[in-house]
Amino acid sequence: MAAGNIPFRPPLPVAGIRLGTAAAGIKRADCKDLVLIELAAESECAAVFTRNAFCAAPVIVAREHLRKQKPRYLLINSGNANAGTGQAGVQAALDTCRMVARLADAADTSVMPFSTGVIGQPLPLEKFAAAVPIAFSSLHEGAWADAAHAIMTTDTVPKAISETFEIDGRTVTVSGIAKGAGMIRPDMATMLAYVATDAAVNRKVLQDLLTGAVRRSFNRISVDGDTSTNDACVLIATGRARNSPVTDAYSAPGQALQAALDRVFAFLAEAIVRDGEGATKFIRIRVESGLSEEECSGVAYTIAHSPLVKTAFYASDANWGRILAAIGRAGISNLDIAPITIDLNGVRIVEGGSRAASYTEDAGQAAMRPTDIDVLVDLARGEACAEVWTCDFSFDYVRINAEYRT
Amino acid sequence: MAAGNIPFRPPLPVAGIRLGTAAAGIKRADCKDLVLIELAAESECAAVFTRNAFCAAPVIVAREHLRKQKPRYLLINSGNANAGTGQAGVQAALDTCRMVARLADAADTSVMPFSTGVIGQPLPLEKFAAAVPIAFSSLHEGAWADAAHAIMTTDTVPKAISETFEIDGRTVTVSGIAKGAGMIRPDMATMLAYVATDAAVNRKVLQDLLTGAVRRSFNRISVDGDTSTNDACVLIATGRARNSPVTDAYSAPGQALQAALDRVFAFLAEAIVRDGEGATKFIRIRVESGLSEEECSGVAYTIAHSPLVKTAFYASDANWGRILAAIGRAGISNLDIAPITIDLNGVRIVEGGSRAASYTEDAGQAAMRPTDIDVLVDLARGEACAEVWTCDFSFDYVRINAEYRT
Repeated sequence: MAAGNIPFRPPLPVAGIRLGTAAAGIKRADCKDLVLIELAAESECAAVFTRNAFCAAPVIVAREHLRKQKPRYLLINSGNANAGTGQAGVQAALDTCRMVARLADAADTSVMPFSTGVIGQPLPLEKFAAAVPIAFSSLHEGAWADAAHAIMTTDTVPKAISETFEIDGRTVTVSGIAKGAGMIRPDMATMLAYVATDAAVNRKVLQDLLTGAVRRSFNRISVDGDTSTNDACVLIATGRARNSPVTDAYSAPGQALQAALDRVFAFLAEAIVRDGEGATKFIRIRVESGLSEEECSGVAYTIAHSPLVKTAFYASDANWGRILAAIGRAGISNLDIAPITIDLNGVRIVEGGSRAASYTEDAGQAAMRPTDIDVLVDLARGEACAEVWTCDFSFDYVRINAEYRT
Repeated sequence: MAAGNIPFRPPLPVAGIRLGTAAAGIKRADCKDLVLIELAAESECAAVFTRNAFCAAPVIVAREHLRKQKPRYLLINSGNANAGTGQAGVQAALDTCRMVARLADAADTSVMPFSTGVIGQPLPLEKFAAAVPIAFSSLHEGAWADAAHAIMTTDTVPKAISETFEIDGRTVTVSGIAKGAGMIRPDMATMLAYVATDAAVNRKVLQDLLTGAVRRSFNRISVDGDTSTNDACVLIATGRARNSPVTDAYSAPGQALQAALDRVFAFLAEAIVRDGEGATKFIRIRVESGLSEEECSGVAYTIAHSPLVKTAFYASDANWGRILAAIGRAGISNLDIAPITIDLNGVRIVEGGSRAASYTEDAGQAAMRPTDIDVLVDLARGEACAEVWTCDFSFDYVRINAEYRT
């Protein structure tokens, strides 16, 4: 189950992108767990990766290959993260790249590998050897939905979306898929996302557009405060829409593309939180009137990471004291409590350092009943704001994570 | 239930200290929830309080009263934290001090108030008015065990201990009680502790001894990463042992007293973690060979606060990948993964950035079976170390905190 509805419609094909899938038996038997994405030769590609110092072997290899040349293939497996596998893991990731490269008659470095799943198990290369040719031979433009399913781990639903808009009178498509449900926090945690557009975009601009979209989406979500070793987010522009290339992110076409990307990324990020392990509530925490965006996001994350706050949301309990205590320990210097206000779904619950005079338990309970909860904190000391999306903490979170390996 | 055995023996009386209790009906009917501690007139008193910016009304008043004069009475209630109650809460705390002061014919400022329980409810002054005289009239030296029971909230067992040792050939006693089970993290979270000795100690030395003991005990524990609004820890020295006053913390008597206090504080801190909400495991996380104590404790707390690590411990699953991922996101600059080692109860599980060559799943499972787990992380980059004690994250943690107010 998930917090609210996560609509799934098969994404629109993107000219210049073909996808292939296979059941390699890495995740479990008879279940697709391998995805190959082929990029047309002229495609530009940008990516961001986890900042976890213990980054996984495929992250090391993918980053290095992207630095060396334009990628032609992305190879993604679920079921095994190839993380905590040392030098042998790096060699295994390189070996999987070679398997694709041989079939495609391309350079090894034109393949970027991605893995998600259990940490610390050797990558089963023999399963790759059997399944990579199947994925390769099944490459076609319409396999986005299959791919969205195949990259899932503890996800309960696939996550995918498309947007279309116009540049120079030509219709441009953006399609994206993502996976992730646990070990989710800022800086991209156990999250994989692949977004492609047929727009023609200069490489540098593409990276800027990606950075902006990620900052406003994946980097403001948190399920459990854990950052994964394997996160990666890739943005591809094939150029097949034949628009005149976007060479300035601040031009009208650049802004139109950024807006479409923002919608796609926000949808995928929200879907990941809604599908957060054991989630029953989707919680938007907005902190306003802080001295800096950093201060505001610090407060928002302290609230979002508090197990006491998250269990209260699970219980639909307007336990504003726990929110208040979280703000108080967020490490803001010279915090004046008196002018701070807190609203839950539009109900003022705290003012003047205590329960709002207008507050009633009935109003608080009514505010907590919906699946979607907006928490608004006003620090009343500046002009900055920040928003973080998170979910509640349920029995199922414990069950899923206590049972994951067994 | 708790993680392992928490032995309870009624503490020894401390000459110069009398305690009284009453069932005020604040926590629930027919249950002792009010404690009054009387200090002999010549007693010295030191205290540390929460650093949460949203500190509770009694913390504000207690800190102010301690600054003004030597306290003669500590008034403690459970069931209501008098936090998030604004100026009205401060007035209510002052009112409860006045009730004691009138009975004792003492100054209001000679009373320090303490509260623990639900945040944001007005303090029920009429219940105090009825119960304070009962607590006052029951003051006697032997009520330590009653007091340990009366300050409990979600604690499943009372926490108390005594130590004796000699100064100048005179037997000195240290007795202490504490409460706390959730909202526990460094800097003293929803934790109340009262420790008294009959040793004669200079006020300044007493504060130094307290600071040292707290740093090595209460400030290195974490149940859920939340810091309470109400924490307080009080150390009293009545001087009734008639030793020549300890005026130097580094003298032989000072060191003997520090050692006894360290044992008392460590016992109480460990008891709080073992009784952590829903705890089934007691986990000691020791990080060695870091560049600084701060770096080591940063890594230790990142591990201790990870819900993924905590649920794996609950499942007795040696999911070292989650520990490794937590180390990787602890924010250490220029962390070299290769030389890091991780041991669980003496079993080497990680070396060279991956699973140790000698590791077997059987050995890992055997290491995770006991209630007490020692996690040893060697960063291999310096001389510093730090230790943090925590517990696992269970179904019961969610149950307790989702149901606490209902």
